[in-house]
Amino acid sequence: MSVFLGIDIGGTNIKLGLVKDNGEIQVSGKIPTRGEEGPSAAASRVKEWFIEHCIDRQDAKAAGIGCAGLIDGKGGFLHVSPNLRGWENVPLAEVFTGELSLPAFLDNDVNCAAYGEFRKGAGKGTKYFICMTMGTGLGGGIIIDGSLYRGSRGFAGEIGHTVVLAGGPGCSCGSKGCLEALVGAGAIVDRARGLLGGKRESMLDDNDDLTVEMISKAAFSGDKLAAKVFKETGRFLGIGIANLVHLFNPEVIAIGGGVAGAGDFLFEPARKSFREHVMDDILADARIVPAQLGNKASFLGAAFLAMEGAAGASV
Amino acid sequence: MSVFLGIDIGGTNIKLGLVKDNGEIQVSGKIPTRGEEGPSAAASRVKEWFIEHCIDRQDAKAAGIGCAGLIDGKGGFLHVSPNLRGWENVPLAEVFTGELSLPAFLDNDVNCAAYGEFRKGAGKGTKYFICMTMGTGLGGGIIIDGSLYRGSRGFAGEIGHTVVLAGGPGCSCGSKGCLEALVGAGAIVDRARGLLGGKRESMLDDNDDLTVEMISKAAFSGDKLAAKVFKETGRFLGIGIANLVHLFNPEVIAIGGGVAGAGDFLFEPARKSFREHVMDDILADARIVPAQLGNKASFLGAAFLAMEGAAGASV
Repeated sequence: MSVFLGIDIGGTNIKLGLVKDNGEIQVSGKIPTRGEEGPSAAASRVKEWFIEHCIDRQDAKAAGIGCAGLIDGKGGFLHVSPNLRGWENVPLAEVFTGELSLPAFLDNDVNCAAYGEFRKGAGKGTKYFICMTMGTGLGGGIIIDGSLYRGSRGFAGEIGHTVVLAGGPGCSCGSKGCLEALVGAGAIVDRARGLLGGKRESMLDDNDDLTVEMISKAAFSGDKLAAKVFKETGRFLGIGIANLVHLFNPEVIAIGGGVAGAGDFLFEPARKSFREHVMDDILADARIVPAQLGNKASFLGAAFLAMEGAAGASV
Repeated sequence: MSVFLGIDIGGTNIKLGLVKDNGEIQVSGKIPTRGEEGPSAAASRVKEWFIEHCIDRQDAKAAGIGCAGLIDGKGGFLHVSPNLRGWENVPLAEVFTGELSLPAFLDNDVNCAAYGEFRKGAGKGTKYFICMTMGTGLGGGIIIDGSLYRGSRGFAGEIGHTVVLAGGPGCSCGSKGCLEALVGAGAIVDRARGLLGGKRESMLDDNDDLTVEMISKAAFSGDKLAAKVFKETGRFLGIGIANLVHLFNPEVIAIGGGVAGAGDFLFEPARKSFREHVMDDILADARIVPAQLGNKASFLGAAFLAMEGAAGASV
């Protein structure tokens, strides 16, 4: 039996697991990232975790690493990450290869999540699949003919920064009207605040602590204002999905991340808007579904990518 | 020596040529389509043209056909075409195979043009390339890792119907704010009319015959209103290109079709807008260039696709 290490490095935690070659997760867990201590210290603590928790770790053939940020997958380089200050131009694959004494493969965490969903979750059985992760940021991974699509230099799939409302609200990237600026967590909270300011009745308070989770919970409790927030969000999401379908003609689009927790309050208006904005019936066949693997998607996908990398497949 | 037939079926004319396996065009020409006579009659006249003009036609190994419309390339089916009334659910590849006694391969004319530019024009030497054709409609073809990208069911690359201005002007497809509704020929003429209505000075007249060519000519003659029309058009075009670059991370984006005749009056504002809307320097490396093959791109690309089809390559 071969096993593979899956590692998902986030700003707060590193999620990790030992994954069998059939995709079964043998052990999984998480440790604090402590980004300020630097990449080598993180790699060292990852190693300790595997020594402590995995009796089969000596069977590991390779490690896959997902990390938020601008990543050169082929070179194994992290250029810059929004949540890991000081981790700039780090040869992250090399650092982990050295520490773990295993070939290590690096990719964007959202790409890893998409690949995990493709192999074992919402995209299983398809060949053309897109997975969006909706949280503070809006990321996406694109599967084309069964492989993760990276583009000419590894930066494809920046779904969150495609413009759907030219001249629209400002985005964290410096542009305007990006999908992220319309359906990201910040945009959803802003939308709720706008409606609350209009003195509509709601169980929500317009205070600094308002979160998407709170709005989502209110919607499930029957709060009409909260439902309206997701309805408007879903409209823009459906437009973004229609754009992807016009360009990539995928079979399935999966949506994960915290925002997807709003369920059909988000999905139903998104599907409706998608159908309104898609040009013909054949493209409209694409299915919009929730992602299935939750926060295990990234480390699992990273492990699958390591499997392919170790096998010498072009991934 | 092997030669291949390239055939580009438009609403008014069929452009065609005999193409050597090294890509050299041996003979080319055009005949009227006379769509109302039906596909078989057209195929028959195509055959006559080749008999009359091509002494090497007996060396032809396959024919490639580009046609405007919704096309199922694998099955060789034309579902429906905006410019060929009555040509619905036509097994067009089969019709031409029968008439020409050659294996015939069918694809969308814009895909063919993109593939022609990729093999012999603006995309030569790249592996990740996008070619947009801007006229009344706005189409596009996408090359990924050296192959034409078709998606799960053959309908990928509908660039013109991606939304960049949610709730914006109505589009021929029934949706709103599509790129085609903002930078297609109709949108450009409407933009000029809007400015002319504002009583600005211009050599242009607001009459029914106003065309993109006239606006383009005025711009080259120093007309400031005409230049402004292309500046505003370029802004939306740059946004559309930024979206493509965020998703596909190509090396080069080429722009052809009649509208591209405005040259730098269109390209410069498009490049500026592109840089403003793209999220990072690496993605901004993508080059935006004019297409090179003019109205030969489609039949040439069709011939190249026939070459690959005949060789059994997965195209």
